[in-house]
Amino acid sequence: MLKTPYQDLEDRFRRMDALGGALSMLHWDMSAMMPPGGVESRTEQLAVLKILGHEMITDPALADLLDAAEADQHLNAWQQANVHEMRRAWVHACAVDADLVEALSRACAKCETIWRSARENADFKAVLPSLEEVLNLVRQEAAAKADKLGVSAYDALLDQYEPGGRADEIDTVFTDLSGFLPDFLDDVLAKQAAGPEMMPLDGPFPASAQKTVGQAFMTALGFDFDHGRLDESHHPFCGGTYDDVRLTTRYDESDFTSALMGVLHETGHALYDQGLPKDWRGQPVGADRGMSIHESQSLLIEMQACRSREFLEFAAPKMCEAFGGSGSAWDVDNLTRLYTKVEKGFIRVEADEVTYPAHVILRFNLERAAIAGDLKMADLPGAWNDGLKDILGITPPTDREGCLQDIHWYDGAWGYFPTYTLGAMTAAQLFAKAKADVPGILPSIAKGDFAPLMDWLRTHVHAKGCSLSVQDLIANATGESLNADYFKSHLKARYAPG
Amino acid sequence: MLKTPYQDLEDRFRRMDALGGALSMLHWDMSAMMPPGGVESRTEQLAVLKILGHEMITDPALADLLDAAEADQHLNAWQQANVHEMRRAWVHACAVDADLVEALSRACAKCETIWRSARENADFKAVLPSLEEVLNLVRQEAAAKADKLGVSAYDALLDQYEPGGRADEIDTVFTDLSGFLPDFLDDVLAKQAAGPEMMPLDGPFPASAQKTVGQAFMTALGFDFDHGRLDESHHPFCGGTYDDVRLTTRYDESDFTSALMGVLHETGHALYDQGLPKDWRGQPVGADRGMSIHESQSLLIEMQACRSREFLEFAAPKMCEAFGGSGSAWDVDNLTRLYTKVEKGFIRVEADEVTYPAHVILRFNLERAAIAGDLKMADLPGAWNDGLKDILGITPPTDREGCLQDIHWYDGAWGYFPTYTLGAMTAAQLFAKAKADVPGILPSIAKGDFAPLMDWLRTHVHAKGCSLSVQDLIANATGESLNADYFKSHLKARYAPG
Repeated sequence: MLKTPYQDLEDRFRRMDALGGALSMLHWDMSAMMPPGGVESRTEQLAVLKILGHEMITDPALADLLDAAEADQHLNAWQQANVHEMRRAWVHACAVDADLVEALSRACAKCETIWRSARENADFKAVLPSLEEVLNLVRQEAAAKADKLGVSAYDALLDQYEPGGRADEIDTVFTDLSGFLPDFLDDVLAKQAAGPEMMPLDGPFPASAQKTVGQAFMTALGFDFDHGRLDESHHPFCGGTYDDVRLTTRYDESDFTSALMGVLHETGHALYDQGLPKDWRGQPVGADRGMSIHESQSLLIEMQACRSREFLEFAAPKMCEAFGGSGSAWDVDNLTRLYTKVEKGFIRVEADEVTYPAHVILRFNLERAAIAGDLKMADLPGAWNDGLKDILGITPPTDREGCLQDIHWYDGAWGYFPTYTLGAMTAAQLFAKAKADVPGILPSIAKGDFAPLMDWLRTHVHAKGCSLSVQDLIANATGESLNADYFKSHLKARYAPG
Repeated sequence: MLKTPYQDLEDRFRRMDALGGALSMLHWDMSAMMPPGGVESRTEQLAVLKILGHEMITDPALADLLDAAEADQHLNAWQQANVHEMRRAWVHACAVDADLVEALSRACAKCETIWRSARENADFKAVLPSLEEVLNLVRQEAAAKADKLGVSAYDALLDQYEPGGRADEIDTVFTDLSGFLPDFLDDVLAKQAAGPEMMPLDGPFPASAQKTVGQAFMTALGFDFDHGRLDESHHPFCGGTYDDVRLTTRYDESDFTSALMGVLHETGHALYDQGLPKDWRGQPVGADRGMSIHESQSLLIEMQACRSREFLEFAAPKMCEAFGGSGSAWDVDNLTRLYTKVEKGFIRVEADEVTYPAHVILRFNLERAAIAGDLKMADLPGAWNDGLKDILGITPPTDREGCLQDIHWYDGAWGYFPTYTLGAMTAAQLFAKAKADVPGILPSIAKGDFAPLMDWLRTHVHAKGCSLSVQDLIANATGESLNADYFKSHLKARYAPG
């Protein structure tokens, strides 16, 4: 029986997905399990699997198959959406010729290595030539993709992480936020200073106890340990495949908060993965809907749900018991204060949810200028410091706490940063709608029951896979397009009530 | 610059090796790490990687490249040996057409599943039709490979595990052993019965302590933890890649011996992997020299070295300390008796080194008859029980302890069994020569110093990779071809001295 072009494409993409799953598992292993001496052979394995995947998607047969599948009148809506995602992946893969792909891969690997010591030594000049080379190649990549996608160079990069994302639209919401944040932040800091003093929690907090608590909360949230694990790695992440989600964390025995909140954050990612439509496993339409939606799921769990007073009412006695805590530092009031502490700082990954958008907006503005050719890398440190001064009123002591802090640009990931704050806004908008639809969500969380929240997310977000665009997904779930209002309301209600 | 055919082949085989390494890691993960719900996507990943590997080696371009490389006058001896191994792999891969490969893979997967419950229920009839189907397909495979290799059907199967192995030659040494074993076994059992009573070691033995001891002995043996790990799995094995060797074991808290001896056995495999020539990583000639040589390395460590009195002099105080043991049961004399206990039993994997060859010879004779068409699977249980009666004088109560005990045939691995006893004989012959060359080997082991033994093995076995045939490897290392004399002498010296 002859396969239709659509069936042929499904078979090919299922094979690519399996290859991608293998790659993802090998990445997880490299971070969580591999002994140091394995790095050389692992690098070779990853490179070969990547080449094979690239060969599959750039197979000349795909052009005709995609045309034929797009003309097929018998496909249902999900199948059509599947073809749409196949086309998207194909355009991205074919837009850039193999020489440029290889040059980029080599330049990024080199730059990343130099960046590690440059950051250590706060020596931006050491990495400048490599960074210039990466940017030069990324701009070539952006131009090639822009041509095929019919969008601007920056939007072509953004589209890799945020399908259909447009800088102009992001600019509108970010400008809204930029106008709101500085005064609001002053207000929050003043209120915080006038409030009760925060009492620190005294450790040590054994890693084994942290792991037990983390797993207990993961279970309460609905993480399925039949389809996933929790391990340790230097940089925590959520990897693996949708049916076998591998979370990692890192334990600091003097402070359990960073590991615990990290686990809850990654669990948000994992619940999305585990909730994607099982009928479409292995197909592009069955995948997650890109970085901002993924981040919305992790932030909804970590920030919206698990830094709420309701969650802490449930969590405080469990934490107290696991760590043998006692005294008023372990009261829900004090814990809530600790978990919603706001502070101006230099480092994005340590930022609270009020100051975090400032870090992202700074990077978004800088990377757009760089891709447009309006910002030379030699001027990056100055532009960074000026920008941070404008938006947060502080200046990093060295470039280590400034433009050297994040791996992204040095590793070739330009156009990624806005997805963090898009995710935060999406999380706020989704959570507001979920609570409006199901008033029992927060009272249930106070009892450790996440089912009402998860039911809503499964139905309105997870089960959709890639069948809708990001914009339609948000509009269908919340009844309006993405905007900053819910995020601002959330910040006001939590950090400057009354 | 144009690649020579040889260089082209090196590139292709390096790619296949990386793919094989990825497969191996995913297998390890499946046994040691994967949550149960991951099995479906993992199966898909493994299948896709296997198909890609098969496509690479059956690429039509290889026929001409191999011809050209074989005609290349400029290759050195290692390169020539490399081409020889490439040809071997190519002949095996191309001999069988894709339909038969797929039919076999499906039949084996199905039969293995049925076998698990058939063994559980001692119900051979339940698995008989599937086993007949597997055997039928294996015989087709054997005929196809025999045709290409110019050997008998059985030898064609054997060649997959024991390159260049010939049933006639194996028959000669196995017949020698068969003549020796029955009377010798009676003698050993009589001596054992007349000797001091064995005192059991009282547990429990916590898994964490077993792991600590295992790792300490692995380190003493020379296992490089920068290039490997020790984990747990239901069926212990040595997997991963040569640069990242993944050992597994299983802990029984009522008896530490099985896990510990298992770890030492797998460490023997691992030391071989870690000692293969680094200059030839990723090339066929840099690989291990097949199953009997691999088994010789594990048995040399476990049986020859680590059940010796010398090793137990080193190990006894360490075990005593780790498990808090005391009393005369922990004396070296008693431990030596425990670790060299001989007993007639039904189960191959639990057999001691005196009775083990009987189990292998039984299977070797049966599988040769089956492949030749002289033994119908319906007659297997009877033939098994008759054979075991002949060679060990015992009859299994049910087929669970008889012809259902091993996975091999049900999973399509015919021609594998003889490598266990070939390995045992090779281990004895190598260890005898090593001790003759370096008299300090055993005295050093008594002090926990394995370096003299490892130096000898590195030089005479590990560093050779696949540059020599099995026969030449043994002859070069020991000065004579493989024979049963050293194994018999070893058994006599250890089990029936004087």
